[in-house]
Amino acid sequence: MARAWHLKSRPQGTPTADNFALEPLDLPRLDDGMVRVANRWLSVDPYMRGRMNDVKSYVPPFAIDAPMEGGAVGEVVESKADGFQPGDWVLHMAGWRDEAVLPAAALNKLPDLGVEPQAFLGNLGLTGGTAYFGLLDAASAKEGDIVFVSAAAGAVGSAVVQIAKAKGMTVIGAARGPEKCDFVCSLGADAAIDYSEGPIVKSLAAAAPDGIDVYFDNVGGDHLDAALALARRDARFALCGMIDSYNSGQPASLRYIMRIIGMRIRLQGFIYTDYVPRLGEFYRDMGGWIAGGQVTARDTVVDGLEAMPEAFLGLFSGANTGKMLVKL
Amino acid sequence: MARAWHLKSRPQGTPTADNFALEPLDLPRLDDGMVRVANRWLSVDPYMRGRMNDVKSYVPPFAIDAPMEGGAVGEVVESKADGFQPGDWVLHMAGWRDEAVLPAAALNKLPDLGVEPQAFLGNLGLTGGTAYFGLLDAASAKEGDIVFVSAAAGAVGSAVVQIAKAKGMTVIGAARGPEKCDFVCSLGADAAIDYSEGPIVKSLAAAAPDGIDVYFDNVGGDHLDAALALARRDARFALCGMIDSYNSGQPASLRYIMRIIGMRIRLQGFIYTDYVPRLGEFYRDMGGWIAGGQVTARDTVVDGLEAMPEAFLGLFSGANTGKMLVKL
Repeated sequence: MARAWHLKSRPQGTPTADNFALEPLDLPRLDDGMVRVANRWLSVDPYMRGRMNDVKSYVPPFAIDAPMEGGAVGEVVESKADGFQPGDWVLHMAGWRDEAVLPAAALNKLPDLGVEPQAFLGNLGLTGGTAYFGLLDAASAKEGDIVFVSAAAGAVGSAVVQIAKAKGMTVIGAARGPEKCDFVCSLGADAAIDYSEGPIVKSLAAAAPDGIDVYFDNVGGDHLDAALALARRDARFALCGMIDSYNSGQPASLRYIMRIIGMRIRLQGFIYTDYVPRLGEFYRDMGGWIAGGQVTARDTVVDGLEAMPEAFLGLFSGANTGKMLVKL
Repeated sequence: MARAWHLKSRPQGTPTADNFALEPLDLPRLDDGMVRVANRWLSVDPYMRGRMNDVKSYVPPFAIDAPMEGGAVGEVVESKADGFQPGDWVLHMAGWRDEAVLPAAALNKLPDLGVEPQAFLGNLGLTGGTAYFGLLDAASAKEGDIVFVSAAAGAVGSAVVQIAKAKGMTVIGAARGPEKCDFVCSLGADAAIDYSEGPIVKSLAAAAPDGIDVYFDNVGGDHLDAALALARRDARFALCGMIDSYNSGQPASLRYIMRIIGMRIRLQGFIYTDYVPRLGEFYRDMGGWIAGGQVTARDTVVDGLEAMPEAFLGLFSGANTGKMLVKL
């Protein structure tokens, strides 16, 4: 019988394993127009933390005692829908479970770009697309810009580093610890900052003596404040996530906020799903960079559905380098 | 002999009268190309507080023991420059003094728009231009938008209210005390919030039950946070000043900053001087609104050069309604 992770209680602060329970899942009947999918790869992403709160946001909250959702890639095992055959690989949002029965409209067949299917949860999916549209559209980053990116060893950050280098920018990435900083440099970054070594505003000032033109924010808090401190005239910030605040719920304290005025800084919040109508250009560019070796992936893979909450919680303790995935 | 206010010491926190001294001023000789101006109106503006600090900003700091500067309108009394005759009215930056000798290039003859000369320090000058370009360009405000403006009884804010109404927007203004709120409503605002009555986020939620599309920020701090809390999808914020922080030097604490992402908010810092090449459109629109009575001015006038520091300090205690001016 199919199983799915259910939300059992809403976390106060950092989630724990007790917030989740793996329970049997009643699947709908395979009526006409429906497809049965065996999930092979499940995604865990920081934004899911927001859905655990009972707060209206850009995605609705998870319901208590209901199966959770998220990005998943699977194989069609049975189909009563035109256009879907057993063996087809599909992308959908019925993750956090091993099997799903879905209407054809809820499935996207993976385009044949010569990459492994799990790439559609990473560099060719939510995280790569977030990096691509955030950097190039929300932040209007262009050749020659000096770009600072936080959580640069993470899934989104590592894509930002590589896209920025592919586009001829100078890139400074922040991460925690020497191993992750080495990884950021291996992606092509011009400098990596280990933020566990001291105040990030000092490290950034040393790494970017001429200041920065673009900041890609995955973290908020002191990283955002440091970017404000070092921003040059007409700097542009893409605000993608604030993992610093997801669990703490504390207000952000910004010492350098007044520089927004003097330096004419633009801050732009954005969400990947707004760019779905433009996925064509993303697949074209990103597919080309992956084929050409300019964008690579180092996934952190956790085995088995049972380990999924552990994989998710690892996002907040920095357990992942690159994209965190669950393999079934 | 000419006299000018000199900066004697740099304030810690809120400036005091001791930071200023009125001293004799040696004027340059009236060589060829030079013009002698008797100042009639002097401007005090919140941004001058920043120039009292020894910090690199978008305008250089005032030097200790040197005469201060700022917007001024005066009458030419003697000229050795082509194009300037005694009796001409001019706008220039050699304020904080009763008389100036300046090269012709430092002077702007007032265009004949049928308004009183001091309007070129207010609705047709720095403050009106700041309101115009901040609202319509930095915030991209358009007909039908719900606009929130802080310090709405001040010089910039009162211009924002009137421009927004002239352009068919809904306007909510924040000010302190019933008298200023009445003034804001008299300018055409749809609602005025007295922020001394309680948490501004609650008052704004009551005044804007559907949220806001645009925020024009003169204050920062809790006003900015309330605007973040109430912002709708794709809201745009023009960040013009943060008078809350000019003296306190405290970091801003923003509880609702994460809404920038979910609501795709854009925050744009701006400075009036960037728009000098576009002053033509400003004079055309603003001149028309003033002539048509859609934009009016209520100045707070202080008499005499001796009272100038008092006028300036009054900006931070809310002593002004509309534009604060010194009349000589």
